[in-house]
Amino acid sequence: MTLNEDDIVQCFAHLFRDSSRGMTGIGDDAAVLPSINDEHYVISKDLLVENIHFRLSYFDPEGLAHKALHANLSDIAAMGARPAFLLLGLAIPPTLDHIWVRRFSEALANECHRQKVGLIGGDTTASLHDLFISITVVGRAPRATLKYRTGAESGDVVCVVGELGEAYCGFKLLEGKQAGFKEIKAKSLCPMALVQEGLWLGGRSEVKAMMDISDGLFVDFGRLAEKSGVGGVIDLNSLKPSPHLKAACSLLNIEPVECVLVGGEDYALLFAVAANDVELVSREFESVFSYKPNQIGFINAGQGIRLMQNGVDVPWTYKAFSHFGEN
Amino acid sequence: MTLNEDDIVQCFAHLFRDSSRGMTGIGDDAAVLPSINDEHYVISKDLLVENIHFRLSYFDPEGLAHKALHANLSDIAAMGARPAFLLLGLAIPPTLDHIWVRRFSEALANECHRQKVGLIGGDTTASLHDLFISITVVGRAPRATLKYRTGAESGDVVCVVGELGEAYCGFKLLEGKQAGFKEIKAKSLCPMALVQEGLWLGGRSEVKAMMDISDGLFVDFGRLAEKSGVGGVIDLNSLKPSPHLKAACSLLNIEPVECVLVGGEDYALLFAVAANDVELVSREFESVFSYKPNQIGFINAGQGIRLMQNGVDVPWTYKAFSHFGEN
Repeated sequence: MTLNEDDIVQCFAHLFRDSSRGMTGIGDDAAVLPSINDEHYVISKDLLVENIHFRLSYFDPEGLAHKALHANLSDIAAMGARPAFLLLGLAIPPTLDHIWVRRFSEALANECHRQKVGLIGGDTTASLHDLFISITVVGRAPRATLKYRTGAESGDVVCVVGELGEAYCGFKLLEGKQAGFKEIKAKSLCPMALVQEGLWLGGRSEVKAMMDISDGLFVDFGRLAEKSGVGGVIDLNSLKPSPHLKAACSLLNIEPVECVLVGGEDYALLFAVAANDVELVSREFESVFSYKPNQIGFINAGQGIRLMQNGVDVPWTYKAFSHFGEN
Repeated sequence: MTLNEDDIVQCFAHLFRDSSRGMTGIGDDAAVLPSINDEHYVISKDLLVENIHFRLSYFDPEGLAHKALHANLSDIAAMGARPAFLLLGLAIPPTLDHIWVRRFSEALANECHRQKVGLIGGDTTASLHDLFISITVVGRAPRATLKYRTGAESGDVVCVVGELGEAYCGFKLLEGKQAGFKEIKAKSLCPMALVQEGLWLGGRSEVKAMMDISDGLFVDFGRLAEKSGVGGVIDLNSLKPSPHLKAACSLLNIEPVECVLVGGEDYALLFAVAANDVELVSREFESVFSYKPNQIGFINAGQGIRLMQNGVDVPWTYKAFSHFGEN
């Protein structure tokens, strides 16, 4: 049985009422964003498609709502902005029933509430085959604290906050139906956007460029470098896979360093800081978050990303991260 | 063959560059909206799902891009706002190739350009079965000119601008593989959002409530009335199906008035004006657009929508408009 649109609208209506954070235009043709003096809105949109980005067999509705939300919050955090509003698009296949949709939407609304994000609109419809989740997220920030991919300069130190490679490894464990490794699987199933870290880094004028790592360190560092018109170097000695990750990689017969370099969906943050500022920023970051950014390399005047170890170039052919159905 | 994400990103990159209208943050984690004094942003999000909202057999990529865009522009126009920015989400099934995607995205970018709408971001991915199109559109308007579904009061006259029923009839002709009736089919295949009309009506303080009619006059009038806490009456004598529509309905064995009442996807505008103001607004509207709003009924203190003809209640059981896969 396919879902009746009005039933779903009803199901969402009270969620919107509860989480609209005083906005007008909710349930109207379009939501109205409050005007903000001296701040800018930032906006981002992501798609999650069943059997491309996720399998329903791995997720209960609450888990999928969490993942869909955090993947999007990460984009706003990566701009140094505060997530503020969210619009949800959901195309629902005949295999999912009202209970599933209600659980998903309630979990999404609850997590939005916890994150102080207003759920202000969207669209639901039927789908013939696959579940399709489209989220638009709006954030806000003073102009001066917005961080772009541009701005990195030769000599800058490049840092990462957040774990790398574990989400990818967790995904491989799930695909291989491997038992155990609950913590690593959780990195794939239940990622946490680094919203507070992104905001804090946004507020630091020393941070010259920032992005989130959703497609793997190697690829995303390459994107930041390209946007900034520079090259970059990753110091392989700086990438220290955890014992957990090493154990899982050993079982999967993957090089841990490959996991760290190409694994996607970590939602870690990558940023560039002038070499003179990096110790100060790291120290103050640690005093707030109780862990240090990891200095994974530096920017140079070249093109593309090179790998080095003990001061020597490491040739390496990598295979970029892809979801089940891509590439 | 599924599409490589980077190829698609490349394909979009120059379109974004050309149509970003001076925004920053394009191709970054999120796009940045310029701050606007004394204006508000409005935001709306729509999904179009293959074989639920459209069939690829009816549309070339340019036609589908046009329809997807105008369905969304209509939501902004219905708020009395000016469409300003657009984000596109596209999940592409293996049946569509690079050429299709390029034609679709170029047509979308061209029509955005024509409509002075900046294409500022989005996401593309693979899909296993169906094509999904998710559009987020951002508009802007001074607070005073925004129109909501609330605000209609007992005694107000209710008007429509735009044709009703023809898109639905065109859709039925296509589904029935009927030859001819090119003009009516075009109303389904190539709808035009009434952007200028919406803006003009937004600027009229006499217009107390407004929305677009995407799910049929009866259903959408009911929504406006409910949001305003009032009831409404449709005068069947005011609904004058065109000779074209009558001829097509006769072939399809549908009552023309049913087409007009329940047919969706017209993207006409529905609005309420105090009875004292309706002649003035109509006259001035006509002087700009060379046609008059159609006065289709009025607001009363009741609940729900009633049908009347020659001053007498007309009992009627209607079946709401639905797409192929819904209800």
